[in-house]
Amino acid sequence: MQNKKVPFAPIKFSRHVLYLLDQRKLPIREVWVACRNSRMVWKAIRDMIVRGAPAIGIAAGYGLYLGVRHFQGDQKGFLKTLRDQGRFLDSARPTARNLACALERIMKAVHCAGDRSVEELKKLVLAEAIRIHHEDIDLCRKIGVFGSELFKKGDVLLTHCNAGGLATSGYGTALAVFYALKEKKIPFSVFVDETRPLMQGARLTAWELQKSKIPATLICDNMAASLMRAGKIHGVVVGADRIAMNGDTANKIGTYGVAVLAKVHGIPFYIAAPSTTFDLKAKTGEDIPIEERPHHEVREIQGRPLAPKGIKVFNPSFDVTPHGYISGIITEIGVLRPPFTKSIRRIGTLLEKS
Amino acid sequence: MQNKKVPFAPIKFSRHVLYLLDQRKLPIREVWVACRNSRMVWKAIRDMIVRGAPAIGIAAGYGLYLGVRHFQGDQKGFLKTLRDQGRFLDSARPTARNLACALERIMKAVHCAGDRSVEELKKLVLAEAIRIHHEDIDLCRKIGVFGSELFKKGDVLLTHCNAGGLATSGYGTALAVFYALKEKKIPFSVFVDETRPLMQGARLTAWELQKSKIPATLICDNMAASLMRAGKIHGVVVGADRIAMNGDTANKIGTYGVAVLAKVHGIPFYIAAPSTTFDLKAKTGEDIPIEERPHHEVREIQGRPLAPKGIKVFNPSFDVTPHGYISGIITEIGVLRPPFTKSIRRIGTLLEKS
Repeated sequence: MQNKKVPFAPIKFSRHVLYLLDQRKLPIREVWVACRNSRMVWKAIRDMIVRGAPAIGIAAGYGLYLGVRHFQGDQKGFLKTLRDQGRFLDSARPTARNLACALERIMKAVHCAGDRSVEELKKLVLAEAIRIHHEDIDLCRKIGVFGSELFKKGDVLLTHCNAGGLATSGYGTALAVFYALKEKKIPFSVFVDETRPLMQGARLTAWELQKSKIPATLICDNMAASLMRAGKIHGVVVGADRIAMNGDTANKIGTYGVAVLAKVHGIPFYIAAPSTTFDLKAKTGEDIPIEERPHHEVREIQGRPLAPKGIKVFNPSFDVTPHGYISGIITEIGVLRPPFTKSIRRIGTLLEKS
Repeated sequence: MQNKKVPFAPIKFSRHVLYLLDQRKLPIREVWVACRNSRMVWKAIRDMIVRGAPAIGIAAGYGLYLGVRHFQGDQKGFLKTLRDQGRFLDSARPTARNLACALERIMKAVHCAGDRSVEELKKLVLAEAIRIHHEDIDLCRKIGVFGSELFKKGDVLLTHCNAGGLATSGYGTALAVFYALKEKKIPFSVFVDETRPLMQGARLTAWELQKSKIPATLICDNMAASLMRAGKIHGVVVGADRIAMNGDTANKIGTYGVAVLAKVHGIPFYIAAPSTTFDLKAKTGEDIPIEERPHHEVREIQGRPLAPKGIKVFNPSFDVTPHGYISGIITEIGVLRPPFTKSIRRIGTLLEKS
């Protein structure tokens, strides 16, 4: 059984078939795509049926197994096929770091295994793919458990974007905290920022929480401030795309505004992210580049025009929240507290040792 | 000639026909609806072809004239028809204060006119309707001129929602400031919050500014914070739905968040509104009721679902910005400064005298 119990699993592997929940169709329809070979996995990654860095890495791992599964021949030929398939899958989304990492990790495992039969090597590829999958589940679960200790019965929490199970193996990072609270039977509820322009909050987070029977209320991004003023929010938990060594955090556009508003209203603001999110090369947030995305995302919604033709648009994908606005960073190793320069360095040393 | 020169006129009256720019079709199509009788004006108000309190009042005034224009009979019969038509037009949107005010004002003018012929009374109705229209233009223009003195060459301003010409006779309140800057040939530019859920910024403000050749950039509401942090915004100007006697201001949802962010980043935050917006009965913002609007506005866009079915929604239409966040209130009489309790009381005295 490759499937650990998670709140819901957007990635399943069973009897040599990889099943992916088609995230483009959510929340209107729940469609599963069955991938029986590496070409289908490649297409699923390229077409964003699966999204979120960890989820892409997991899918690619299984894809690599499906790519070598039917190989017939000698060990040398097998290794060549493995390399070719790896390169092929990596080309699905060239900039996704987790994708390349997962593929390299499996190939390394095979190369380190020494002299084994082709059938044994195939089993090893699958075993490593499953390990990548299960490690993600464990890591997210740990984030959830540490995060759940920060909140109490009756708390109302706010989240932005989708740092959820859909981006990972089923727990997520920010949402892992909510799933852990639910597992501990602590009553609480969540406000979900819809997260313009791509609506990951409305489409994905709202869907996940509804599916998991966690009381959730959807709001437009601009409504959080007045809820805070009315004393209706007790904590904020969001994910992270990259964290600099001083704690400055890049996350979905809108996060910075939420952090400032939380501080003004005396509400704790937490980042939930695995330790792999720390970027050793980024000293501060200024070292994190901010990608600008296509203008039609703001001008249109689901392909329908909302704004006048030709209007100028500014559409940054992320913003950086300075460390001073962050109450804590919830990782799989524990909750880091300010000053982050110290606590992040400590975690770095721990990780290097392991 | 009934049409004063304005940046653009969403309401025109010419040769006994009222032309209304159909705001439901903007910004995709520019459709004009010609109303030739009071029934058509009633329908245009009811169906929100024309929106914004001042604009509704102006349309109703012309509607009343169209309703009595073809009357044949004696003075007594005329007055009855006038009353009936007034009651009829008033029923188009029963809660719109400006609608009732405009109709009452015209009827009062007729009653005070004394003994006149029916033809003379018809002319009087039209003259009063035109006066209501022109007064709105003058009032908005004055707001614009006072507001324009607050900014300088090269400033980048932010606005939220549509406090624009489309809601009034063609100048607007917040946007009147921009039109005045443009008329003074002061180079500046504007960031426009799209203003979820109903997208008045993306649909109407962006359209108005584009039409008036004012450099405008559309952003999602959650992007303003990072622009402020980057030092790219030099001032904020928004409208108001109601202002309490201490300066607390109710305006479109999201305004409060913008005000807090402006304060944190040291950016002046202005309200632009006519003195009629002050509510003598509201001592503070707590006396202003906040309407909650239908949930489908958040769950859907243009009738298409964005969020999972049945997800709970919170959709307040307005929020209240406490006076401490407001740098000044731009009115047709001048710019009020804190402490507002004093400056608003002074304006109240001035108005009572006039």
